[in-house]
Amino acid sequence: MKELPIHIQLDPDSGLTLYEQIYEYIRNEIRTGNLLRNEKLPSARFLSEYLQVSRTTVDMAYGQLVAEGYVESQPRRGYFVSAFEELYALEQGRQETVTESVNENDTSVTYCDFSPNAIDMRFFPYATWKKITKNTLVDANSHMFSLGEPQGDASLRETICRYLHGSRGVNCTPEQIVIGAGNDYLLVLLEKILGRHIPVAMENPTYVRAYRIFRSFAYPVPLVPADENGMRVDCLRKTGAQAAYVMPAHQYPLGVSMPIGRRMELLKWASEAPERYLIEDDYDSEFRYKGKPLPSLQASDADGRVVYIGTFSKAIAPAIRISYMVLPYPLLKRYRERCGFYSSTVSRIDQTILNEFIRDGYFERYLNKMRKRYREKHDLLLNGLKPLEQAFLISGSNAGLHIVLMDRKGRSEDALAQAAMDAGVKVYPMQDYRIEKADSEEPARMILGYGALTPDEIVRGVEILKRIWA
Amino acid sequence: MKELPIHIQLDPDSGLTLYEQIYEYIRNEIRTGNLLRNEKLPSARFLSEYLQVSRTTVDMAYGQLVAEGYVESQPRRGYFVSAFEELYALEQGRQETVTESVNENDTSVTYCDFSPNAIDMRFFPYATWKKITKNTLVDANSHMFSLGEPQGDASLRETICRYLHGSRGVNCTPEQIVIGAGNDYLLVLLEKILGRHIPVAMENPTYVRAYRIFRSFAYPVPLVPADENGMRVDCLRKTGAQAAYVMPAHQYPLGVSMPIGRRMELLKWASEAPERYLIEDDYDSEFRYKGKPLPSLQASDADGRVVYIGTFSKAIAPAIRISYMVLPYPLLKRYRERCGFYSSTVSRIDQTILNEFIRDGYFERYLNKMRKRYREKHDLLLNGLKPLEQAFLISGSNAGLHIVLMDRKGRSEDALAQAAMDAGVKVYPMQDYRIEKADSEEPARMILGYGALTPDEIVRGVEILKRIWA
Repeated sequence: MKELPIHIQLDPDSGLTLYEQIYEYIRNEIRTGNLLRNEKLPSARFLSEYLQVSRTTVDMAYGQLVAEGYVESQPRRGYFVSAFEELYALEQGRQETVTESVNENDTSVTYCDFSPNAIDMRFFPYATWKKITKNTLVDANSHMFSLGEPQGDASLRETICRYLHGSRGVNCTPEQIVIGAGNDYLLVLLEKILGRHIPVAMENPTYVRAYRIFRSFAYPVPLVPADENGMRVDCLRKTGAQAAYVMPAHQYPLGVSMPIGRRMELLKWASEAPERYLIEDDYDSEFRYKGKPLPSLQASDADGRVVYIGTFSKAIAPAIRISYMVLPYPLLKRYRERCGFYSSTVSRIDQTILNEFIRDGYFERYLNKMRKRYREKHDLLLNGLKPLEQAFLISGSNAGLHIVLMDRKGRSEDALAQAAMDAGVKVYPMQDYRIEKADSEEPARMILGYGALTPDEIVRGVEILKRIWA
Repeated sequence: MKELPIHIQLDPDSGLTLYEQIYEYIRNEIRTGNLLRNEKLPSARFLSEYLQVSRTTVDMAYGQLVAEGYVESQPRRGYFVSAFEELYALEQGRQETVTESVNENDTSVTYCDFSPNAIDMRFFPYATWKKITKNTLVDANSHMFSLGEPQGDASLRETICRYLHGSRGVNCTPEQIVIGAGNDYLLVLLEKILGRHIPVAMENPTYVRAYRIFRSFAYPVPLVPADENGMRVDCLRKTGAQAAYVMPAHQYPLGVSMPIGRRMELLKWASEAPERYLIEDDYDSEFRYKGKPLPSLQASDADGRVVYIGTFSKAIAPAIRISYMVLPYPLLKRYRERCGFYSSTVSRIDQTILNEFIRDGYFERYLNKMRKRYREKHDLLLNGLKPLEQAFLISGSNAGLHIVLMDRKGRSEDALAQAAMDAGVKVYPMQDYRIEKADSEEPARMILGYGALTPDEIVRGVEILKRIWA
């Protein structure tokens, strides 16, 4: 038997599952350089026999390593350690239940609306929320009706800090967190912090709302092409951008998860000049249906170049207007000087309710439930679409609340969307998310969100699409 | 008997009190030009005999006319119609119960803290708020957890519109109202609407928080002296300002109520050039203890030059982060173009609770109660300070939650504040509210707020001040 580069001592009492132990071991070997770049890993079948574990266990570990970009799967050749520019210290915390999702309502009436912005509120624990609210509003808590700290209540910032470290590997202290009423407001604060006329690079297509907000600041927004790994750093370099807005966990709308190599390239770009920053919008990172959630880009940031933005408006409900921003220290200093005195935009009552909802474990439970529900919908949708695989390449799956179908038959996005609409099904053409129109040679891409749909609606919608798009 | 210029038909069945009928009649005669500027009015004693009403009734009517600036009281000469530049159509709605007050906590511990920023939350109807909250959070209302309109929910905007018209004479439609999480946020939006490098004139002393916010936009802020009628328009003209920030109902911290003449001058200044605006911060206008609340400046604005800003954060509780801004149509158009797509910063749940609180009459009842409480404190404080009247001129009374004491004996603000502090009483020197220091010749002024104090605390605090400041 050939000498294996893998010498794992599996420990059934370690508190970690077997797949986690395998994953952690290999990741660590890559980080420490014991496994070299481009080195071939044993096949999953071989490793499962060697370690006396099920094939599924090894598949899950490899799948996670591939998803995070440490390992590449090459068709018919096997698994190889990725070749990325440089290894920054990756601080990743324990896995925890995490979620996020997307908001906004579409009021158009159709038979089945594959909106990528809608979430499922049917399972929200209204009774629990009401109970916490009731307990919060007791007379003894009248201090709650006074104005709180501009950055947000210290106890909620502590809770968010722990949560972000545990679930997203974010490294920060509570004092680096600024709580605000929604992402848009946080970007408005960020303008005050970064200053005027800052060119912020974005992918094309991207999250159009953020683009419009940057443009409302009169920021130049150079557009950078994205490939299957996300924003192309070679193109970013040519733009003269001072900041780049990215969604490494699950790019919106492309659905790309940025592998570790591209992340390292981005961080390297940021560290090459003073005052370069990455704005990480971690909008739906916690809905991951295969393996662990990917750690945040901020988790790999050794140089204080990442502004991390997340939101509970989306994880819990769009109406809960609570988002948060983690500022690296130099920007925190500037925040305090320039706009640290702006009153908090979130009421202390709402902050207190949210804090208890997270602290008492309700949030974790709700996320677990929703991840399960969304996974069921995700699987139902992908299985249903299998007969369409000859007509479309499906991507962006295994995470978030939407997938992307790329047409293989040269049809136009308009034609595909119109055909669906005529049959009572609303789908979302990629062109709506492009700041600049694509080449006409670009194949048509359609976005299908499934967050708010019931299983029945998905089945019916898929049946129609199969009929009209086959 | 000399021919009187007053021919009122008092009607006991009109639904208006006698004093209201007298007030309305004379105001109308002035507006329509039947009473000429500088014309002398009959004495209060004479009019009360002539109309067969009590002297108090006439005093109240005259007091209201003086407070609103239609009439001037000249010592030992009597009452005269004011001489103001121009009469704009004054649209003033019915009188209703209204309140507002000021926020922020001071954490310094003293025996008695005359903070002008603290309000009394002891009588807040927590149980009612809780009840409404509970009813709002029923499962059937799950749409509440979705994201609402950027400007705020239509039903709340309608409620605010009616409220502002009834209580403050504000003329607007619900579509002109933008709801946001606090005044600071509304000013941030206003920057997007007005544009960059807009010189905004402010009084000195003024509301320092607003000054700091304008400076954080890099707006030039020319300072304009105020006299006993408020911002001096002759000085404003020399500044090149494009906007002026004023608090006509009860200037903070001077306590001045701007009479109608000065208001007209301000409106005239605004209308003399394109793109000139008045920002009216109506922060505590509804607490008026003598006669009616003064109508807003916006109520006299025939030309679309006033941006009216008010807040429930203060009227109800600082933690309720709900403020509103009434935009004239040209600015509303620009708001929609430039930042109308920013997501609302106030949760729909909070908007719904507030809407029901107002709509079902709880707000009115609470304001009535608080006006009574604050009036008692106001009277207690003023009566208690009477023995100090030789040492101080007291101003800024009859409205809001603070008064101003001007020293007649050449003492310094520092000395007065320190003496009080040494005795365990915290008072607030005017210099803390000045953007630029006053001439050393300026007499010392001390601010005494009473909003959060109990009657006992006021009595004890006043006793101490009498002892050390006499």
